[in-house]
Amino acid sequence: MYPNDGFRELERQECLRLLAKAPVGRIVHTRQALPAVLPVNFSLDTDGAVLLRTSATSELVRAIDGAVVAFEADEVDAEAHAGWSVVVTGHAAMVTDRAEQERLARTGPRSWAPSPREVFVRIEPELVTGRELIAGRSLYGVDLQAPR
Amino acid sequence: MYPNDGFRELERQECLRLLAKAPVGRIVHTRQALPAVLPVNFSLDTDGAVLLRTSATSELVRAIDGAVVAFEADEVDAEAHAGWSVVVTGHAAMVTDRAEQERLARTGPRSWAPSPREVFVRIEPELVTGRELIAGRSLYGVDLQAPR
Repeated sequence: MYPNDGFRELERQECLRLLAKAPVGRIVHTRQALPAVLPVNFSLDTDGAVLLRTSATSELVRAIDGAVVAFEADEVDAEAHAGWSVVVTGHAAMVTDRAEQERLARTGPRSWAPSPREVFVRIEPELVTGRELIAGRSLYGVDLQAPR
Repeated sequence: MYPNDGFRELERQECLRLLAKAPVGRIVHTRQALPAVLPVNFSLDTDGAVLLRTSATSELVRAIDGAVVAFEADEVDAEAHAGWSVVVTGHAAMVTDRAEQERLARTGPRSWAPSPREVFVRIEPELVTGRELIAGRSLYGVDLQAPR
């Protein structure tokens, strides 16, 4: 990380608090050796894991099950040049435990379009990083996942 | 791509038109073998290339110069369950040609915080894909970069 880069680094709890109010985030993964990114709705589990609800046959599940992915959400005011961005990086896995599936069916993310073969995917919050963009400073030159 | 997935695939020109009105996008790249994602402001060149203006010493430049990256912008209305997402995938490279640098200094993206050693980075629009999310349908199960 760079000194005076116009960002304030956020603590894990601040990151999770911001993430909890974001309606949509973006799954970042690798597809055919190329970077790929897909907006999805989601919810946060009590331990900070990101939960997705999708079809068991979706290409997304095939692409990310067992892989390390990044999940990003942000809110940037381009007029004010201010906002925040949070990234959760960790292993993604389809939830296979029956009791856990039932818990998530009650408490997990709502599906925008229920399908007959829904599954939940959990992204472990192994690395949770975030930055607050300070008004009037650059968005550039900073890697959101720089080690703390 | 999946039939009846609630998405309408967008043509290249539609993608570029939407991208041109987005104030902020996200650079997706690889950092220490992990997926990384960083919001940035940008502009589009006349050929659809994505232009960034950043510091020559930024970690972002070191990470993406010469690499294939994805650049994503979206606009999703979580209430209406509608919106769009566009991804440009291609090689990123620092602009080194002097005449080109001068042209971009006049016509390229504005910097939110001018730094003394600014450079331009160009992402070639080798693959331009996008989806319109149809209201009331799922965001799931679709890879935005699925081959046409």
